[in-house]
Amino acid sequence: MGRWEPNARGRLAQAALDLYEERGFEQTTAAQIAERAGLTERTFFRHYRDKREVLFEGAPALAKFFVDTLTDIPDSVLPIDAIASTLESVATFFEERHTFARQRQAVIIANTELRERELVKLASLAAALAATLRGRGVPEPAATLTAEAGITVFKVGFERWVGQDGDRTLAHFLRESLAELRTVTAGRQPAPAADGS
Amino acid sequence: MGRWEPNARGRLAQAALDLYEERGFEQTTAAQIAERAGLTERTFFRHYRDKREVLFEGAPALAKFFVDTLTDIPDSVLPIDAIASTLESVATFFEERHTFARQRQAVIIANTELRERELVKLASLAAALAATLRGRGVPEPAATLTAEAGITVFKVGFERWVGQDGDRTLAHFLRESLAELRTVTAGRQPAPAADGS
Repeated sequence: MGRWEPNARGRLAQAALDLYEERGFEQTTAAQIAERAGLTERTFFRHYRDKREVLFEGAPALAKFFVDTLTDIPDSVLPIDAIASTLESVATFFEERHTFARQRQAVIIANTELRERELVKLASLAAALAATLRGRGVPEPAATLTAEAGITVFKVGFERWVGQDGDRTLAHFLRESLAELRTVTAGRQPAPAADGS
Repeated sequence: MGRWEPNARGRLAQAALDLYEERGFEQTTAAQIAERAGLTERTFFRHYRDKREVLFEGAPALAKFFVDTLTDIPDSVLPIDAIASTLESVATFFEERHTFARQRQAVIIANTELRERELVKLASLAAALAATLRGRGVPEPAATLTAEAGITVFKVGFERWVGQDGDRTLAHFLRESLAELRTVTAGRQPAPAADGS
């Protein structure tokens, strides 16, 4: 029981995602996840408080990464450029995890409670970025508007990245979404839709 | 019991808001709301499914108003201008209700569950606007980005409107927020913060 289990946490996370996708989040139990991972239910609860935590354990690290990256950019950089640069760095956080991100997104979209939890996560990220921008001397409402714009770009770009079969990077979709947001707010004609891109 | 009670619904809503503000949402019961309104608990439940519904009963009408207004704007109008025009109309929906909106906002901010419900409401509004824009022929990702930008402007402008003691209109704050979003996304210096405006 107390023995060391190699990469138990990663095995549990993968087993959980596989089962959520196969059977649905609601229909999956902690015992089933443990069994699929070849571990005990007790081991599951040593690593995760509940089955939802498997899907949101990365949230605090992501928020810290966003805030630390933005904080490190010189204050002389314009807010929107600082956000663009932050998104470029955040993309590197995910590039290796396309399959995982795609699987996770499918599970979240299929469940109302999880979609709400994801909204709360994104709203917290926007609030943290707005606070960081205010700390850089950006006044309100510019700080909140820039932060919200950044999270909108992140959300839209991320969804397009996981929704594609090709090998374009998250950074590509984040740049595309930011450019498109700038186009539409400037009152220029939006770019025509390209297949799945 | 079954007798006609003049404006029971409005009296219940006002009593509920007053109690949520005085005692907190969690600490208020349907029986207390009914008592404050001089009505019975049974009358409360004839009008509202639960005490949360008092705060969100306007959501479907607001979504319909947003969508109908946007739909009525000629397709030749640029997406961001159509959203700006929609926000102007939506402002008229609220101008007479500053006190109610202010009270409601304070109650929502004080409660995690209500804040989450409000996020879900705003996300639904954005999704409805994006679908309407797609129906106008706006491609993705422009449709979602424009809709999300519009809801961000609505949220930020609305919060600034309820947060002020002065008599500036919601339309003023929505215009200000949209102008500021356009400024920051264009990479121009944000406007300095003006006191409470």
